[in-house]
Amino acid sequence: MKFIAEIDVMPQKEILDPQGKAVMLGLKNLGIRNVADVRIGRHITLEMEVDNQAAAEEEAAFACQKLLANLIMEDYTFTVRPA
Amino acid sequence: MKFIAEIDVMPQKEILDPQGKAVMLGLKNLGIRNVADVRIGRHITLEMEVDNQAAAEEEAAFACQKLLANLIMEDYTFTVRPA
Repeated sequence: MKFIAEIDVMPQKEILDPQGKAVMLGLKNLGIRNVADVRIGRHITLEMEVDNQAAAEEEAAFACQKLLANLIMEDYTFTVRPA
Repeated sequence: MKFIAEIDVMPQKEILDPQGKAVMLGLKNLGIRNVADVRIGRHITLEMEVDNQAAAEEEAAFACQKLLANLIMEDYTFTVRPA
């Protein structure tokens, strides 16, 4: 069965996010002045061919821990759904 | 009221995603061989101080169109929730 994992990898709360700060400045220059905070991370879509939902979730977590996220500076969250 | 917009900006389906292809190769090297496709985009968290949900959604869409997404090559989706 085909499953799709939607993964978000974001900088941890304590970590400075200069890219986010730059975008906040850009928004202010566009006239959007009521933005309190911007944080920027990565969104990853993983398409997998596995037997069931549990296997898909396990594989997504493994991929996050081993390759997609730097756990020192980033957190990951994901959802898995059948394609 | 405080609202949070969770925005995903992804390369369009027709557009090659070399970063995704590189990650797919990395996953195969890690022993995950049943991944059919990987696509990588950006995840942006926008914290806004606006009156209501409709205003928050309007502002998030404006930010996506004007700054966050390159509409020639990228698509955006977002959800808005009260903080």
